[in-house]
Amino acid sequence: MTKSYSLQEIADFLGAELQGDPACRIKGLNTLEHAAASELSFLASKAYERFLSTTEAGAVIVEARFAETLSCNALVMANPYLGYARISAWFDSSRETMSGVHPTAVVASSAVLGEGVAIGPHATIGERVKIDAGASIGPGVSIGNDSTIGSGSRLYSNVSIYHGVSIGCNVVIHSNTVIGADGFGFANDAGKWVKIRQLGGVEIGNNVEIGASTTIDRGALGNTVIEDGVILDNHVQIAHNVRLGENTAMAAYSGIAGSTTIGKNCVFAGQAGAVGHITVGDGVVAMARCTISKSTSKAGSYSSGLLMYDTPVWRKNAVRFGQLDDMARRLRKLEKGSQK
Amino acid sequence: MTKSYSLQEIADFLGAELQGDPACRIKGLNTLEHAAASELSFLASKAYERFLSTTEAGAVIVEARFAETLSCNALVMANPYLGYARISAWFDSSRETMSGVHPTAVVASSAVLGEGVAIGPHATIGERVKIDAGASIGPGVSIGNDSTIGSGSRLYSNVSIYHGVSIGCNVVIHSNTVIGADGFGFANDAGKWVKIRQLGGVEIGNNVEIGASTTIDRGALGNTVIEDGVILDNHVQIAHNVRLGENTAMAAYSGIAGSTTIGKNCVFAGQAGAVGHITVGDGVVAMARCTISKSTSKAGSYSSGLLMYDTPVWRKNAVRFGQLDDMARRLRKLEKGSQK
Amino acid sequence: MTKSYSLQEIADFLGAELQGDPACRIKGLNTLEHAAASELSFLASKAYERFLSTTEAGAVIVEARFAETLSCNALVMANPYLGYARISAWFDSSRETMSGVHPTAVVASSAVLGEGVAIGPHATIGERVKIDAGASIGPGVSIGNDSTIGSGSRLYSNVSIYHGVSIGCNVVIHSNTVIGADGFGFANDAGKWVKIRQLGGVEIGNNVEIGASTTIDRGALGNTVIEDGVILDNHVQIAHNVRLGENTAMAAYSGIAGSTTIGKNCVFAGQAGAVGHITVGDGVVAMARCTISKSTSKAGSYSSGLLMYDTPVWRKNAVRFGQLDDMARRLRKLEKGSQK
Repeated sequence: MTKSYSLQEIADFLGAELQGDPACRIKGLNTLEHAAASELSFLASKAYERFLSTTEAGAVIVEARFAETLSCNALVMANPYLGYARISAWFDSSRETMSGVHPTAVVASSAVLGEGVAIGPHATIGERVKIDAGASIGPGVSIGNDSTIGSGSRLYSNVSIYHGVSIGCNVVIHSNTVIGADGFGFANDAGKWVKIRQLGGVEIGNNVEIGASTTIDRGALGNTVIEDGVILDNHVQIAHNVRLGENTAMAAYSGIAGSTTIGKNCVFAGQAGAVGHITVGDGVVAMARCTISKSTSKAGSYSSGLLMYDTPVWRKNAVRFGQLDDMARRLRKLEKGSQK
Repeated sequence: MTKSYSLQEIADFLGAELQGDPACRIKGLNTLEHAAASELSFLASKAYERFLSTTEAGAVIVEARFAETLSCNALVMANPYLGYARISAWFDSSRETMSGVHPTAVVASSAVLGEGVAIGPHATIGERVKIDAGASIGPGVSIGNDSTIGSGSRLYSNVSIYHGVSIGCNVVIHSNTVIGADGFGFANDAGKWVKIRQLGGVEIGNNVEIGASTTIDRGALGNTVIEDGVILDNHVQIAHNVRLGENTAMAAYSGIAGSTTIGKNCVFAGQAGAVGHITVGDGVVAMARCTISKSTSKAGSYSSGLLMYDTPVWRKNAVRFGQLDDMARRLRKLEKGSQK
Repeated sequence: MTKSYSLQEIADFLGAELQGDPACRIKGLNTLEHAAASELSFLASKAYERFLSTTEAGAVIVEARFAETLSCNALVMANPYLGYARISAWFDSSRETMSGVHPTAVVASSAVLGEGVAIGPHATIGERVKIDAGASIGPGVSIGNDSTIGSGSRLYSNVSIYHGVSIGCNVVIHSNTVIGADGFGFANDAGKWVKIRQLGGVEIGNNVEIGASTTIDRGALGNTVIEDGVILDNHVQIAHNVRLGENTAMAAYSGIAGSTTIGKNCVFAGQAGAVGHITVGDGVVAMARCTISKSTSKAGSYSSGLLMYDTPVWRKNAVRFGQLDDMARRLRKLEKGSQK
C-alpha cells in the first residue's frame, strides 16, 4: 500500500504557507507536466513555467509570486527546489534495506562492527576495519585493512576501499567507486618510470556523497582530504593529496590534479578541472570543460572551451585560430599605418 | 579443432557475389596486412587500400569497383564493413559459456529465473528480480530488488544494477558498468547540499550494447530511458531522466546531462556531450569534444574544440584568444576609418 | 614498532653524497613543510624551495646547488625526485599482504597457480588460466578463460579481466579496472548497428602500472598491445587494436581511439587523446585536453584547448571565435586597401 500524507502535514514539515485544501492527500511527487491529482509538484526553473497553467498536480510548491495565479493547491516558500528536495525523502520507499552480516561476507576477526551494521553478500572486510552503527555495506564491496566507516554511511555494490581510508558519518558511496588507490606518482630514470610508493591515506568527512565509478586516490605523503558536505558525481577523479573544501560540488568527469587545494562551496561543472599544485579559494565556479590553470583566491565564474558550431563553419574558424597571432600583428600594423 | 567454412557458404550468408574459388576454405578473419591464405579479409577504408595488392588473404570482401583488380578471391558487396561485421559472428569461438546457477551465487527466493539462465560465481540477485530465458549474469554482478533482465541478455563481471531497473532482450553490458545509481540532484540550503531522493528508475530497450565502466543514473521523477538499438562505449555518463533515441551511438567519455532528450540515430564522438534540459533531434552528430549547448532539431554535424598545434605556436595564439573581442572592435574601427 | 634507517644506509642505497650526520635515524618520509626531525624530505620542484629554510626535516634530498645553504643534513644527488621515489619503497609498510587461496575463491580445476600465488575472497578464476609465482589477486577479481598473469603481478579488488588476456610480470592493476572488454566496433545497416565480434585479445608487457577504473579493450582482429613499462592513471581508455610503446605515460581521462599506434616515452596529460588509425612517434607530449588529430613522427609538445578566463570576458571572446574567418577576410581586404 502506498503511503499518503495530507498537504497540511507536508506544509508543516517544509515550513511552507499552505494555500488551498489542507486535507488534500498526496501519494507521490512528479513534474508539473506529468503529475496527477494525488501528486505534489514544484516550480523551480523558468523553463517549466509554461506547464503551470495546465498541470493536473494536486498541489505545487511555488514562490509567492506564482501563488496568486495558481488554480490548484499551493505550498508557498522562498526556495521551492529546496522544498522538493526535503520532501522527496518522504516518498523514497523503494530502497533496498539490508540487515545483518550475510553469511557469504568475509569479515576479518579483528574487524569491529557497530550496532545494526549490515554487510551484503560477497563483501570482504579487512583486518582492524571499524564500521560504526547503522552503516550498510553492499554486495561485493571490499574494504582494506585499518579503514573506518562512520555511522549511517552506505556503500553500494562493488565499491573498492583500500587500506587506511577513513570515511565519516552519513556518507553515501555509489557502486564501483574506488577510494584509496595509489596516486599516479612516478619519477623518471633515464626513460624508465620508478614508482613512488603512496604512503598516505584518504580522509572523507561527514555527509559526503560520492557517485558511481569515481576515484579518490590516497596521498603520496599525508592524506587526500574530502571535507564535510562535499558532493561528487560519477566519473570524478581526485588525485593524491588534493583537499576539497566543505560543500564543494563536482559534476561528472571533473577532476583535480595532485596536491591542489580547493576551497569551500566551489562548483565544478562537467569535465571541468584544476591543474596540480595550486590553491583555489572559496566560491570558485568552473564552467563546463574549464581548466583552472593557476591559483586564484577570487570567487566567481571561470570558463575555457568553445561554443558549438555547424562543423563546416567551425572548420573555417578553427583554422583561423592558428593565424590569430599573425592577425593581431597585422592589425597592429594597419593601425600604425592609419595613424600616420 | 578450428572450424572452417567454404567461401560459397560465406557468400550465401552475406548475399555477396563470389568471384574466384567457391571451395576455398576460410578458418578465420584478419586485416589485409596480416591475413593468411586461410583467412578472409575486407576493405572498408581508403587508408587500407594500399594493402590490397599485396594481401595474402584467401579472399577479400570488397566493393564492386575493386573486384576487377583483385588477384585473390573476392566477395563483392555494397558495404564490405557490414559483411565483415555479420560474418565475424561465425568466428567468435572464444566466448566463455556459462550454464546454470553457480552455487556461490546468492539468489533471493522471490527471484524468477527463466529457462537456461546462467548465473556466475559470487553474483547477488535481489528480491523479485526477473531474469528471462537464456540470459547470462557474470561473476560478481549485483542486481537490486525488482529489476528485470530480458531474454538473451548478457552482463559481464562486476556490473552493478540497482533496484527498479528494467533491461530488455539481447542487451550486452560490459564489466564494472553501473545502471541505476542515484542521479546527481541536490538543492542548496544556505551553502549546504540537501539530497533530492531519486525516485525514478531506468528503462533499457532491446539490442542495446553498453561498454565497460559506463554509468546510467536512475531518474529523479520518472525514468531514464535508453531506447532499442543504442550503443554506448566505455566511460559514458547518462544522467538522470535523459532519453536516448533508437540506434544512437556514443563513444568513450561522451556524456548527456540531466533531463535532456536525444533523438534517434545520433552519434556522439569521444568526449562529446550535451548540456541538461535540452532536446536534440534525430541524426545529430557531435564531433569529438563538441558540447551540444542548446536544443536543436537540425540533423547534421556540430563541432567545438580546437585543432592541434606545436605548443609554442599554440601558446602565442591562445593568448590572442583573450584579445579577440578587442581585435574585432579595432578592426571595425579601421574599417570605418578606411570608408571615410 | 616503526622501522628506522641510518642516513648512511639510505645514502648508500641511493648513491647520494651524504652531508651531515651519517648516524641520523630516519623513520619516515614527508614534505619539506610537514617533516619532523626523524623524517627525510626532498626538494624536486621550484614551488617548494621556499620551505627549504624553515623545514624541520632530519635530512633533505637536494641537488648540489642547494646543499651549501642547507642547515640540516643533506643527501646530494642529481635527481632528488628519483631518490625520493626509490627510497619510498623502504617505508611502505602498510600494504595488505595476502597469502594462499581464500576458500571462497572459485578457481577452475584447469587453472595453474604458481608458487606463492595469493587469491582473495570471492575471486573467480576461469578455465586454463595461468597465474605465475608470487602474483596476488584481490577480492572480487574475475579472470576469464585462457588468460595469464605473470609473476609478481598484483590485481586489486574488483578488477575484471576477460578471456584471452595476457599480462606480464610485476604488473599492478588497480581496483575496478577492466581489461579485455569488447572494442566498440559496429557496422551500420540502414540505421541499425550490427556488432563486429571482437576476436582479438590484449597483451600487456612487464612492469606496467594501470590505475583504477581504467579500460583496455580487446582487439577486433589481432591484439591490443601495452608494451613494457607503460604507466596509466585512473579513467584511461585504450580502444581496440591500439599499441602503446614502452614507458609511455597517460594521465587521468586520457584516451586513445582504435587502431592507433603510440610510440615509446610519450606523455599524455589529463584528458589528452589521440584519434583512431594514426601513428604517433616516440617522445610525443600531448598537453592537457590536446587531441592528437593526425599522425606525427616529430617528438615534442602539442597543445589544443584554451586558457582560463573570467566567464564574462570569456563569453565576449568566445562569440568572436565564430567570426574569426570573417575577421581574417576583412583584415586582408583592409591590407589590400592600404597598399593602394
